[in-house]
Amino acid sequence: MKKLFFPLLAVFFVLSAIAHYAHMNTVFQFVVSAIAVVFVAGFLGKSTEAVSHYAGQRLGGFLNATFGNAAELIIAIFLVKEGLFEMVKASLTGSIIGNLLLVLGASAFAGGLKFKEQKFNVHLAGQNASLMLLGVIALFVPAIFVKTEHIGGTDAFRMSEIVSGLLIVAYIGWLIYSMITHKSFLEDHADTQAAHGEVPTWSKSRSILFLILATVMVAFVSEWLVGTLHTFTADYGMSELFVGAFIVAIIGNAAEHSAAIMLAMKNKMGAAVEIAVGSSLQIALFVAPVLVFVSLLFAEQMDLIFTTVEIAAIAVAALITTSVSRDGSTTWYEGKLLLIVYIMLGVAFYFI
Amino acid sequence: MKKLFFPLLAVFFVLSAIAHYAHMNTVFQFVVSAIAVVFVAGFLGKSTEAVSHYAGQRLGGFLNATFGNAAELIIAIFLVKEGLFEMVKASLTGSIIGNLLLVLGASAFAGGLKFKEQKFNVHLAGQNASLMLLGVIALFVPAIFVKTEHIGGTDAFRMSEIVSGLLIVAYIGWLIYSMITHKSFLEDHADTQAAHGEVPTWSKSRSILFLILATVMVAFVSEWLVGTLHTFTADYGMSELFVGAFIVAIIGNAAEHSAAIMLAMKNKMGAAVEIAVGSSLQIALFVAPVLVFVSLLFAEQMDLIFTTVEIAAIAVAALITTSVSRDGSTTWYEGKLLLIVYIMLGVAFYFI
Amino acid sequence: MKKLFFPLLAVFFVLSAIAHYAHMNTVFQFVVSAIAVVFVAGFLGKSTEAVSHYAGQRLGGFLNATFGNAAELIIAIFLVKEGLFEMVKASLTGSIIGNLLLVLGASAFAGGLKFKEQKFNVHLAGQNASLMLLGVIALFVPAIFVKTEHIGGTDAFRMSEIVSGLLIVAYIGWLIYSMITHKSFLEDHADTQAAHGEVPTWSKSRSILFLILATVMVAFVSEWLVGTLHTFTADYGMSELFVGAFIVAIIGNAAEHSAAIMLAMKNKMGAAVEIAVGSSLQIALFVAPVLVFVSLLFAEQMDLIFTTVEIAAIAVAALITTSVSRDGSTTWYEGKLLLIVYIMLGVAFYFI
Repeated sequence: MKKLFFPLLAVFFVLSAIAHYAHMNTVFQFVVSAIAVVFVAGFLGKSTEAVSHYAGQRLGGFLNATFGNAAELIIAIFLVKEGLFEMVKASLTGSIIGNLLLVLGASAFAGGLKFKEQKFNVHLAGQNASLMLLGVIALFVPAIFVKTEHIGGTDAFRMSEIVSGLLIVAYIGWLIYSMITHKSFLEDHADTQAAHGEVPTWSKSRSILFLILATVMVAFVSEWLVGTLHTFTADYGMSELFVGAFIVAIIGNAAEHSAAIMLAMKNKMGAAVEIAVGSSLQIALFVAPVLVFVSLLFAEQMDLIFTTVEIAAIAVAALITTSVSRDGSTTWYEGKLLLIVYIMLGVAFYFI
Repeated sequence: MKKLFFPLLAVFFVLSAIAHYAHMNTVFQFVVSAIAVVFVAGFLGKSTEAVSHYAGQRLGGFLNATFGNAAELIIAIFLVKEGLFEMVKASLTGSIIGNLLLVLGASAFAGGLKFKEQKFNVHLAGQNASLMLLGVIALFVPAIFVKTEHIGGTDAFRMSEIVSGLLIVAYIGWLIYSMITHKSFLEDHADTQAAHGEVPTWSKSRSILFLILATVMVAFVSEWLVGTLHTFTADYGMSELFVGAFIVAIIGNAAEHSAAIMLAMKNKMGAAVEIAVGSSLQIALFVAPVLVFVSLLFAEQMDLIFTTVEIAAIAVAALITTSVSRDGSTTWYEGKLLLIVYIMLGVAFYFI
Repeated sequence: MKKLFFPLLAVFFVLSAIAHYAHMNTVFQFVVSAIAVVFVAGFLGKSTEAVSHYAGQRLGGFLNATFGNAAELIIAIFLVKEGLFEMVKASLTGSIIGNLLLVLGASAFAGGLKFKEQKFNVHLAGQNASLMLLGVIALFVPAIFVKTEHIGGTDAFRMSEIVSGLLIVAYIGWLIYSMITHKSFLEDHADTQAAHGEVPTWSKSRSILFLILATVMVAFVSEWLVGTLHTFTADYGMSELFVGAFIVAIIGNAAEHSAAIMLAMKNKMGAAVEIAVGSSLQIALFVAPVLVFVSLLFAEQMDLIFTTVEIAAIAVAALITTSVSRDGSTTWYEGKLLLIVYIMLGVAFYFI
């Protein structure tokens, strides 16, 4: 099986590329690109793990989250250009709650079935909680002021820009803090020990190269797969909001998903948390505000005012994730709790 | 005094039975059954403690919570059958906040006056917090989606059923987790030590038998007492919501109440927390969803959409309880805080 | 520089007194009293530190918070007398969020730049969190019941009085708990050690005398400065709400502000937290409810129903402060987070 991995990866990647560019039958496109996603996600998982070996779990996780979100950012910019702000916000919402509840939930559940309790840096868990809260506050404050005090037109846009600027400042500060001034403070102490037991398959530079390559492949395959969804939703009568927030987000995060689960099952919960939580923080504190500024380049401006149910969903996801992860450890049942909340939100969005 | 306990228990139990079935004067019915409640609650407390001695604090607390709620479940089913959904939801709300704020608050306060700091398993406190949050989310999500996105009719019922199903799945998972896979992980380490110092009065089988007997007696006396309230509320002009959420809930939980306080005063805070928090979790995650499915057997279907103030009250109770208990210890002042919030909610409900 | 401190303090205090009572040009009044505030705040900081040396960090912080708020209480009583309830509530709101976000944020940031991690008593942090939550609940519960259930007129006033009474009971309990029954439980253990290294400049009685004198001077200068603001806001077109909640609150808390930062930079984070959090707790749990009762002496009665955005702002401030401080330690980045949320709220209030 291991020997066949790379040939199969190549075959399905090329097949789904052909299916996409030759505008073949949508069902065929969907099937081959769905299979391809499994392989490229697996590839990304392996590369992240290899890089984690050299860079430590947290930097590896950060790189994985960043490369994963780069793809999402590019897709979102195209949507912003076409003024599809509702769909952008729905998919950002879906991405945040998908990472927090589905990716982290599945990781904690799968890892928890193998290990009684999986620990990670408790300081990091605390900081993650504060940053998630900042993201929720940044969505909640403008929305409640705009809705309650009838702030309108230019002022709502101006407020969105300032809040977006503050979020980017907060995120850059976080990178300086977590990667430079308080690097070791937030590190998993089990890190170095865990690494000792393993022999890396790839060299350092090959690992990095493969991580970049895998990310690019994930971006392409995700886009091809997302392209087939429109037909499917039309046939099955699901709302665009549900498709944007759940179907697109699940597939768009398939890579993070499988990488995080794989790491959790190897008891590297710190890296899994970094991928899941780090990725949603990046979307809330960096991708979303950047899109607000990017929209200034185009015809129509996008604000940062999300709908009540989107803010509620993000707040709920942040709260339960914080409650579960704050003590710096997870168990299978805590993973199950996150998954149940995810299904609950999915059901609620489905009925809109 | 100790010698007179069982004779007095028998006398007042029989007296209130006669008063009830012979339809005597309501004031007389109220007085005798109120006195009887004190004795049967004391009996339940003794039995719980005896069973706790053999079963450990947590299992003893769970049994106590379950037997206590069985009575409530039966009463609620009769209300559902008659389509009195508002009163059912009000009494469920009252039961949840009564257990979290009044029972836990009084236990922590009374116990805290004797002991400077009372500790219990910190993992259990964290898991309880996550489960309380799940209960709040399960009430909040359907309500906000139904109210904001105008989801109506069949869809609201369908959503209630799915959310109820998920809660039951979560609760069963919790039982497996806390009683089987992570039993010792969530146990009070002081447990065994504390037990050493005491000599049990009753044998294991007698303790269990008495626990069941006490529970049945509590169920009967509670119902007789509740039956007299209608006349009283009519005379004193209190709203049915207030009576359901406060008077009924206080009397209905009198047993849990006195059992928990008695345990707290013997420094068995772990068992007191299990009774108080465990009981409200059981209502939110098991009794309420079961009632949604039970209603399918009758003429009219009940949804899981609580009113805004009910959800607010439950959320407030869950938040302050979590804040107070999260660190796995309580003091007298933390108990006082819970009691103050309880009075605040009581006042607010009174003015509706 | 050190030698010139007291002469300059005296000069600017007298100058701003003359400018105020001789009704000089408003810009001149503003400039001299703004400079005077810097000196009297510095004086208050020095005195607090001297008293802290003798009394321990926590009692010193409490005294500082109390003297600081005494001034605010007096000003607020005059506003209540004139029926300016909106402005009173806005300035109470501003004072709470200013203390939690600006004062604590700047302290943690400034202290964190010098020290990698600054620790303080973790029990105290937990209790502070519960008390902040109580303050939020006390504002949230009456507001949501009044708005959702249409409780009006006399009942809203009655509910405000009862809730206010409960808050005062809670606050007095807190003083008994934190100063008497659980004093050492909540103390910084680093306290005594830190004190050893320093030689106090002033004697015990002189320190106390100076603390009282400094507080009185702060009260006067703050009032003179606030008096000049009306002209400024009229010219710059800022809303009264923004001026009340931000400009007045920042200047009114300048003393707490500089005292807390100075202590944080000397690694006495426990005292800084006590000033910042203790001060906002005192406003929420004591000053605000006292004003409700004080209003009964005047023509018009004040209720405790704050506006939605005020409650939202206080809730947001309490949540992020709790998230950051709960673990009993702060870093520069956590300080920055608080400052960012403060700016966010300031921007939102500005756009109303």
